[in-house]
Amino acid sequence: MTARGRFISIEGGEGVGKSTQIAALAELIRMQGLEVVLTREPGGTEGAELIRQMVLGGSAERWSPRAEALLFAAARSDHVERLIEPALASGKWVISDRFIDSSRAYQGAGSGLSDADILTLHQIGSRGLLPDRTLVLRLDTQEATNRAAARDQNQPDRIQGRTATFHSDVDVAFVSFAEREPRVRLVDASGDTQEVTARLWSEISDLLEPA
Amino acid sequence: MTARGRFISIEGGEGVGKSTQIAALAELIRMQGLEVVLTREPGGTEGAELIRQMVLGGSAERWSPRAEALLFAAARSDHVERLIEPALASGKWVISDRFIDSSRAYQGAGSGLSDADILTLHQIGSRGLLPDRTLVLRLDTQEATNRAAARDQNQPDRIQGRTATFHSDVDVAFVSFAEREPRVRLVDASGDTQEVTARLWSEISDLLEPA
Repeated sequence: MTARGRFISIEGGEGVGKSTQIAALAELIRMQGLEVVLTREPGGTEGAELIRQMVLGGSAERWSPRAEALLFAAARSDHVERLIEPALASGKWVISDRFIDSSRAYQGAGSGLSDADILTLHQIGSRGLLPDRTLVLRLDTQEATNRAAARDQNQPDRIQGRTATFHSDVDVAFVSFAEREPRVRLVDASGDTQEVTARLWSEISDLLEPA
Repeated sequence: MTARGRFISIEGGEGVGKSTQIAALAELIRMQGLEVVLTREPGGTEGAELIRQMVLGGSAERWSPRAEALLFAAARSDHVERLIEPALASGKWVISDRFIDSSRAYQGAGSGLSDADILTLHQIGSRGLLPDRTLVLRLDTQEATNRAAARDQNQPDRIQGRTATFHSDVDVAFVSFAEREPRVRLVDASGDTQEVTARLWSEISDLLEPA
């Protein structure tokens, strides 16, 4: 019987270097002889990507916070059932660029929905699957803004376009998850790429030991 | 201050004459000097109609039952917040071709989701709004199949295409709602149009009295 794979989610705002770090972590895990599946949210499967297009498109008022939370939960349900769970069951490791904690931080921030509501949607949609480890990459806000601006020449999407106050509330949410939930780790994303990768690696290396 | 309008949902399978009866009921209510808004689910608003297209399109396996339930709840959330609630608040009556009980009967039938799960999604998405009255039009299965076949020359959608057993489970669900919830009334849809309209009218005329 194959041992179940491990599930890691990477969180963090625009410009913190998530994509680069995900690629570096995947490489390190593969060097241990493990298979790694990289995915992202919202999206990751055909159905979830359709929902992603629908929910990120249009004006800021296109979807109410409640409808948005349900749409993200629907996308996640498809993603978990059709990609994440089968991969873990076959022994692969999965790294997802964002997962449930993004919904909790982004939809929870000032939407009128409670954290309990969002976790209830996740329970019904995805049987409450949580990552084995969640790494939250953090930079001070100005550095992140500069990096994101340097990269994105195109229009921000509906969620990237929200205000600085909103993004600060999101950061507070991630900090509070890390305080209460041992699987969630805050990682300093400043400094050079290899340094950050080393910090991330030290937060997940225990997962390589047999469960 | 305007008295809040009343909210009526009409349920029943394909071929029971829902559209004809909704038009007739609306006419009778308008003759009382009331404004009536007609709508339908899934759909009824721009956002909800987008979700409708997405959820009813594609193959039978396109969406898992959990993802489907979340998508319907998202569509309903938009519909309630942007059409039904504002109409009721301004004193209009609303008649919806299907509402929450369709989700309970269709997604509940053999999907692995409980009635409590579907009602929880409705609580989070739409603050649990229930119709003042729900009229379930019922015909014996063969008569309904004949009527639907005579009308629909085009392909059935993802849900219409399901099996006879599935549709029988759906009927059992509606009967059980009517047994337990006084707002839900079963109405015999056989016989001529005016007779059926008279039966429906007798089930809602008490709503015309001041609350």
